[in-house]
Amino acid sequence: MTHWLNIPADTDFSIHNLPFGIFSVGKNSPRVGVRIGDYVIDLEQLRKFGLLAVPRNVCNQANLNAFINLGKNKTSAIRLQLQEWLRQENSPLKRYFNQAFHPIASVKMHLPVKVGDYTDFYSSLEHATNVGKMFRPDNPLVANWKHVPIAYHGRASSIVVSGSPVIRPKGQIKPADSAVPVFSPTKEMDFEVEIGAIIGKNSVLGQSISTTEAESYVFGLVLFNDWSARDIQRWEYQPLGPFLGKNFASSVSPWVVTLDALAHFRTETPQQDPEPLPYLAFEGKRNFDIELEVNLIPQDKQAYTISRTNFKYMYWNIAQQIAHHTINGCNLKIGDILASGTISGQKPDSYGSMLELSLGGKQPIVLDSDTQRAFLEDGDTLIITGFCQKDGIRLGFGEVSGKIVASN
Amino acid sequence: MTHWLNIPADTDFSIHNLPFGIFSVGKNSPRVGVRIGDYVIDLEQLRKFGLLAVPRNVCNQANLNAFINLGKNKTSAIRLQLQEWLRQENSPLKRYFNQAFHPIASVKMHLPVKVGDYTDFYSSLEHATNVGKMFRPDNPLVANWKHVPIAYHGRASSIVVSGSPVIRPKGQIKPADSAVPVFSPTKEMDFEVEIGAIIGKNSVLGQSISTTEAESYVFGLVLFNDWSARDIQRWEYQPLGPFLGKNFASSVSPWVVTLDALAHFRTETPQQDPEPLPYLAFEGKRNFDIELEVNLIPQDKQAYTISRTNFKYMYWNIAQQIAHHTINGCNLKIGDILASGTISGQKPDSYGSMLELSLGGKQPIVLDSDTQRAFLEDGDTLIITGFCQKDGIRLGFGEVSGKIVASN
Repeated sequence: MTHWLNIPADTDFSIHNLPFGIFSVGKNSPRVGVRIGDYVIDLEQLRKFGLLAVPRNVCNQANLNAFINLGKNKTSAIRLQLQEWLRQENSPLKRYFNQAFHPIASVKMHLPVKVGDYTDFYSSLEHATNVGKMFRPDNPLVANWKHVPIAYHGRASSIVVSGSPVIRPKGQIKPADSAVPVFSPTKEMDFEVEIGAIIGKNSVLGQSISTTEAESYVFGLVLFNDWSARDIQRWEYQPLGPFLGKNFASSVSPWVVTLDALAHFRTETPQQDPEPLPYLAFEGKRNFDIELEVNLIPQDKQAYTISRTNFKYMYWNIAQQIAHHTINGCNLKIGDILASGTISGQKPDSYGSMLELSLGGKQPIVLDSDTQRAFLEDGDTLIITGFCQKDGIRLGFGEVSGKIVASN
Repeated sequence: MTHWLNIPADTDFSIHNLPFGIFSVGKNSPRVGVRIGDYVIDLEQLRKFGLLAVPRNVCNQANLNAFINLGKNKTSAIRLQLQEWLRQENSPLKRYFNQAFHPIASVKMHLPVKVGDYTDFYSSLEHATNVGKMFRPDNPLVANWKHVPIAYHGRASSIVVSGSPVIRPKGQIKPADSAVPVFSPTKEMDFEVEIGAIIGKNSVLGQSISTTEAESYVFGLVLFNDWSARDIQRWEYQPLGPFLGKNFASSVSPWVVTLDALAHFRTETPQQDPEPLPYLAFEGKRNFDIELEVNLIPQDKQAYTISRTNFKYMYWNIAQQIAHHTINGCNLKIGDILASGTISGQKPDSYGSMLELSLGGKQPIVLDSDTQRAFLEDGDTLIITGFCQKDGIRLGFGEVSGKIVASN
């Protein structure tokens, strides 16, 4: 593939990607953009110049919801058109380069969607087993796990874009040696490596979505960090699930990578045994081979890679998650996020949370001669990156990052 | 109190109430209204006639969020002004009666708010104990319950207004005599009597709200029915809490009764022992004496009263729920709903769910000589009503109703 724009060879934002996001420049209001290399293409400008046939009040919005609501036929066509124009020597984009191409260093990125509901799944067998051992030594993998794609509702209001600081939450913690809880900032601040699916089509309350239709309801994927306070979570989570141990913040990467872009990186779902109920049966390659890396940067230090894992390990795929989520008639809306649950691999260096990496804090990971971590400390920056690479084609998600700020 | 409008003596919508809601007439678009007796006062019309000094695009909206965003100072003043005008013989409202007063029979009611996040608490000691005995005979009241106002995040997208049909959900059920789950419509369709608090002010991510400030974040209350499929819930809820057993539908009453209107019905919170942590300490009367009644109407039958309970029984009050919800920095937004959790009293005829009334289905309740119910059947209509009465003052919530429709 040739093109007229200078695009770094190893970029996540190759011509194969072209993800959508919300950006602003200076004091201008946020709008829809497409990332290519180190530039953001301004879709509102392209519309104004007559290159993009979309209604007003779509590309000049502070979230992608109206854009997504155009429908996949339309948004996929826009992406393909841009791809074509980026390849053409005689491209109409060249004419508007100064007005419509913003250097990435000059823009501010925003939360890509207005999130209606956020659902967090628990779809990694390795993670469920690792965590289960710690929370329930006598019953690590609950009997329903291989039948039910377990999930719970998370908090939508506290989802923030990559780069937002994360304040260490306070709450009730029950020390093992105390009969009663104490009040404290969390001592077990953690991250969770996840992928979030952004819903791209409204479904109807009372109607289920089959695994065959399911992916038509997904606009694209983002990196997702489900920040967790383990000590708060441990004390509160029975019997109704996690609440304050999770809902203080979740971070997402700003660029939504479309399923179109990811088509080349489809892969098989791991063998499911026992066979799930018929409504969860599916055909085709429904997992995605996305390499994930976790880097921890202690205050004034370098980055240390603390985990490498892959989205392809997930036991339950997105099509199954959607079929399950709607089997009872629950409706999905544009902008909803379905997060995968922590993505852990089988080996200890592929675990997707501090809880697993440090064995519940009992075995801190060593970063350098004078730095180790059981959980995250104030001043730590945690960065998750994700990319796909195969047959000389590479594309990625950029990153989702967050710095831990002391409790106020 | 005298007034010039004919208001039925026993109405829930007395001059002491004046709740806000969203209504439409014929094919006109939905707008903000205030209920008085058998009429709805059209606030958009009052604005057009110059009686209401509010910006455009507030009273002509399909939800109350923009109206609530005016702030309590403003919305309380509007309510008091209407109250005064309804009492004055020389009232400016009389002039616009035909244009601004709609008979309740002529309007359609809508969901009052756009719900960002919906949180369901679990704040009745009696309910938690009753249900705990059935779900966990060995551990009915989890050790955290008297320390933590337990809650989980529910589904916002499937919240519907009173009168909306409720389709019997399908899903995974594990029969006691089977090692594996089966797929079936729920056989344990249930309701839960709750009160929902509508959030009236945005809070800031990372900042907590004290019990003293908490009620300033509440616009008003509604009746709330947290429909539940017990067999689906029982199989799925470990370890992350209820999901498909709940998220197929929740119903709310259309009229939001303000805390101003409810001030006369404040009452003491039950004694809390052990004393909760300091951030949950509170002063003053923070519970509300709201009588609740549950009526079940089987298809083509009369109504049977199956429970009478009271919101005053709640162990944790709304101020404590808000302080807890935000102690970790989680932010609240206008339109969010904080539901109380099922409101059960101590006596069996005051239980707030079929699960409790029928002892988990083992002891069906007898409605008449040929009708009994362990759980709800297709064609059943379930109606929850709520009102306050004291010192000759009466006001109420109207009702939240829903009819069970066969699985599709």
